[in-house]
Amino acid sequence: MSDQNQPDKLYAMRHSLAHIMATAIKRLWPDAKFGVGPVVENGFYYDIDLGADKISEDDFKKIEAEMQAIIRANDVFEQFEKPVDEAIAWAQNAQQPYKVELLNDLKRAGTTVAKDLSTDELGTIASGDAQVENVSFYKNGEFTDLCRGPHVESTGKVGAFKLQRIGGVYWRGKEGNPQMQRIYGVAFATPKELRQHLDMLEEARKRDHRKLGQELDLFTFSPLVGPGLPLFTPRGTVIRQQLTNFAESLRLASGFDRVSIPHITKTELYKVSGHWDKFGEQLFLVESQVTSDAFALKPMNCPHHHQIYAFQPKSYRDLPVRYFETTTVYRDEKTGELGGLSRVRSITQDDSHVYCRADQLEAEVGSLAADVKSLYLTLGMELHARLSYRDESDKYLGEQALWDESQTLIKSLAEKNDLSYFEAAGEAAFYGPKIDFMATDALGRDHQVATIQLDFVIPERFGLDYTTEDGSKQQPVVIHCALLGSIERFMSVYIEHTAGKFPVWVAPEQVWIITLNQEDTTVDYAYGVLKQAKSLGLRVTIDNASESVGKKIRSAELYKIPYTIVIGQKEIESGRVTPRIRKDMEVHEGSSTLGLDEFFKTVANEAKSRVLKTSL
Amino acid sequence: MSDQNQPDKLYAMRHSLAHIMATAIKRLWPDAKFGVGPVVENGFYYDIDLGADKISEDDFKKIEAEMQAIIRANDVFEQFEKPVDEAIAWAQNAQQPYKVELLNDLKRAGTTVAKDLSTDELGTIASGDAQVENVSFYKNGEFTDLCRGPHVESTGKVGAFKLQRIGGVYWRGKEGNPQMQRIYGVAFATPKELRQHLDMLEEARKRDHRKLGQELDLFTFSPLVGPGLPLFTPRGTVIRQQLTNFAESLRLASGFDRVSIPHITKTELYKVSGHWDKFGEQLFLVESQVTSDAFALKPMNCPHHHQIYAFQPKSYRDLPVRYFETTTVYRDEKTGELGGLSRVRSITQDDSHVYCRADQLEAEVGSLAADVKSLYLTLGMELHARLSYRDESDKYLGEQALWDESQTLIKSLAEKNDLSYFEAAGEAAFYGPKIDFMATDALGRDHQVATIQLDFVIPERFGLDYTTEDGSKQQPVVIHCALLGSIERFMSVYIEHTAGKFPVWVAPEQVWIITLNQEDTTVDYAYGVLKQAKSLGLRVTIDNASESVGKKIRSAELYKIPYTIVIGQKEIESGRVTPRIRKDMEVHEGSSTLGLDEFFKTVANEAKSRVLKTSL
Repeated sequence: MSDQNQPDKLYAMRHSLAHIMATAIKRLWPDAKFGVGPVVENGFYYDIDLGADKISEDDFKKIEAEMQAIIRANDVFEQFEKPVDEAIAWAQNAQQPYKVELLNDLKRAGTTVAKDLSTDELGTIASGDAQVENVSFYKNGEFTDLCRGPHVESTGKVGAFKLQRIGGVYWRGKEGNPQMQRIYGVAFATPKELRQHLDMLEEARKRDHRKLGQELDLFTFSPLVGPGLPLFTPRGTVIRQQLTNFAESLRLASGFDRVSIPHITKTELYKVSGHWDKFGEQLFLVESQVTSDAFALKPMNCPHHHQIYAFQPKSYRDLPVRYFETTTVYRDEKTGELGGLSRVRSITQDDSHVYCRADQLEAEVGSLAADVKSLYLTLGMELHARLSYRDESDKYLGEQALWDESQTLIKSLAEKNDLSYFEAAGEAAFYGPKIDFMATDALGRDHQVATIQLDFVIPERFGLDYTTEDGSKQQPVVIHCALLGSIERFMSVYIEHTAGKFPVWVAPEQVWIITLNQEDTTVDYAYGVLKQAKSLGLRVTIDNASESVGKKIRSAELYKIPYTIVIGQKEIESGRVTPRIRKDMEVHEGSSTLGLDEFFKTVANEAKSRVLKTSL
Repeated sequence: MSDQNQPDKLYAMRHSLAHIMATAIKRLWPDAKFGVGPVVENGFYYDIDLGADKISEDDFKKIEAEMQAIIRANDVFEQFEKPVDEAIAWAQNAQQPYKVELLNDLKRAGTTVAKDLSTDELGTIASGDAQVENVSFYKNGEFTDLCRGPHVESTGKVGAFKLQRIGGVYWRGKEGNPQMQRIYGVAFATPKELRQHLDMLEEARKRDHRKLGQELDLFTFSPLVGPGLPLFTPRGTVIRQQLTNFAESLRLASGFDRVSIPHITKTELYKVSGHWDKFGEQLFLVESQVTSDAFALKPMNCPHHHQIYAFQPKSYRDLPVRYFETTTVYRDEKTGELGGLSRVRSITQDDSHVYCRADQLEAEVGSLAADVKSLYLTLGMELHARLSYRDESDKYLGEQALWDESQTLIKSLAEKNDLSYFEAAGEAAFYGPKIDFMATDALGRDHQVATIQLDFVIPERFGLDYTTEDGSKQQPVVIHCALLGSIERFMSVYIEHTAGKFPVWVAPEQVWIITLNQEDTTVDYAYGVLKQAKSLGLRVTIDNASESVGKKIRSAELYKIPYTIVIGQKEIESGRVTPRIRKDMEVHEGSSTLGLDEFFKTVANEAKSRVLKTSL
């Protein structure tokens, strides 16, 4: 795709389209106040405040028409700079209070970065480095905006675009701040790429996990419980459990031991670990009414696990110590950023920590990488790895030499384990470099899933050690690894990847037994069949309602049940059934008549072996 | 035991001993300030403030001698009353500031009960009913105390006692209040009963789960994480998991569906459920830094589960709906009350909720009672049931007629299910009556474990319903049930019940393989044996350290490993082993030589069938 071949050009096109959209909106609503307007995946947005007035999706046609006029005019994008005080005067004069606020913050921040001014916001206005003196502007036609760029040469060179949707956000994401409208657009270099993307979005809309979550009865949200806090129904919990059990079975086979920790801790734990300084604002704080101790909900599990490691002295012969646990962490995500299971506040991780000697690192990373590959192969998703290195910023802990060494190590491990990888600076954890795995779904979309992270920093902060062969103390290396990552987010990916057509081993219900009629002999026989299936551990449901067989079969189809069998006089007499097989699974075999015993054993074997008998 | 035959008499003895101890302490430390001094299980305590001075256990001898002198004097316990203002004047004059505070609160409270004045405290001073005008006192010899009584006639009639230990508490349990010393004593009607109790305490001390938790490497607490928040090691987590898996397997066999909920919620949920008014002070409040929503850690699971029930409409044909989940709740217990796993802040429950029609109630309660019986039979603990009814206080929700009906129902269900039961008023949940199960441990101590609770109130508050056969809406009955209750508390009970000698199915390690020497052939063979055992799903550890076999065997004994096998030349040549069997398990069979295959299959079968082959 062109955005991978020419990322900078496409970035400039999308960024220019944000300005063109703002130009058009300013023409249509001259009092519009503008917030920030960055490039995002596949497009751009701009945050806009029209006061009492509001833009609706019905307005997209006229905005797009105005944008096309601006594009046809092919105005040049001109850059110029102003000292920060002049920039503030300009923004005041232009009656753009949000720009005034950003510029004032920038001025206050001086050579450092104001804490609550996000990188995006700074990126929009700073002239390129931390030493802010001049502020950069771009002008196209009658429209001028604070902007670092880059832009295309002129408004005619922006490729193909389409306005997409409107979101409601708070200015700077803070509740209590003014509410703004976020207008999203998608944009590509060519009309063909745009059309392909829109087709993919249409298919994605049909597969939207929020829609399927409702239709297939998988999870719900309650206004009494709150946003970002999903409640999983029995059917959704089967999927969670099947995915988790599989990930856990890989852990157990790789010599991991399960541990168990509480979900809260005194905040001291994070002050020692260093997370408090790095992520203090993402913490849910917990207030005790009976003690003055300050607690927090855990946003990660490592510091707790480290306390278990530290409980008993360890010798070189005890290493590697391997802990795993499927447990929920909590992160105080902004309400506006929550959506279905993609981004939640209660994040269940299949987390693990290996404590090993330096000479064991290679074998341990190799074993973890093999588990990652095994998991996603079974799930039918292609993997590639991002080697996440540090950048030049000061947000990382530990010596530069150690970083260089461990980044080199990560790369050699990626090569030794035959990973398809690319390298990315600035994506490391604050304590060390990572291998982040991306899985490609059935629509070609990439999702960050598993991660393997080296940590040479935290063991020292917690004083973790082991006794070496010569009796001296040595720090272990820690390897953090999750296979599924966030189970909730992975479920959102997996539901859309499969379009809800889960393979037999994951399916909430594997077989539906439908009765042809309501006669006692039929119903009794069907219950006998149910019992037989359950004794093999199958998830089977009986439908003996007084409805037509056709209606019951359609209901099974709506629930995307892998196998449906109808029980009538013929089946009772022969002891044989003709299972209806979910369409996507028929690619391998057609329906045929077979004995009940053979049928259930086949299904049980498919479930046990986690066969992927479906075309997603 | 006499405290069951004559509970009132023993209560009076213990309560009188609290006064006698206070009398003795006042003689020895004339400036002593007294807090409250109630009767507790097996004895009594008194909270005392000596200012800078402190009582130590070395002082017990002289306090006991002084108490014996008071007992020999056989002073009469005289009751008298004073109006509350006179009582305050008395306490001021006696320089008893804590009594002054209690009396002032009592006066302020008037006919209602002050919110932060606990029942214990009121019980100590109120004259018998809520309409407080006069305050009751008791006098023995030179010592006078606020007290509702009852007492024995005279100080000579108090049976046998022994001072036990000193605890540190905050006045009224609130951090920030003055610290007091809580002096505990045990007391029984006869010296023989006292001695039996002290012997039992000595055995209990050896089995103390906190001691075994350390020795057997089961769980730990970290000062960085905080009090009441246990961290389970791999060995402890095996026990947790085995107990939980067994309880869950009973659920699955009884037709329950697993669900999954987050650990936090908006506080609105508890305002609707009614828990906010009842338990608001036991909540850990959760503060979001990005939204103004008020959250709390869940102290129970029912309101969350009810939201899942409410997600999709239900018909009479869908009922009973049965949800279960093993999940952690959080309660803001006072720091001074936390101890090992007995009382923690992170409480994992094997919780369940059945939503059923009234005509299904009997079958559902019967099935739950059968699961409870099955679980504790396997665990080797005797059960009896407490039918927990409401009392006359106003802390219960719902109509009195419904309560009468459901209490009658509970009793008939207890009889139908052949439960050994007793009835207790005032022990109900605020939403309905309960069957609370008590399990008796190997030392004869009773512990509250499982519970089955009827709930006719909450479904209405949440508007839960189902469509009946005639199309009308009806509320389901909810049955709350936990089999293990709090997994943490149950583990404290179970570790002490077994003294750490876990049956094979629970044992963190089932077999230790010890090498006779460090020769390659021996070590290689031992690893082959390990692999064979692991392929059968056994939890097996190899010890090939260069230490003597004797030392390695002693180490296995300290860890209370069920089976230990030694691998040397003889075993390699014969393929046969002579397993050392943990002593308590030998009651059924002695050691004998058998093939490795046969040995491991026997152990695997024992584990699978959850055999209780031990004398606890």
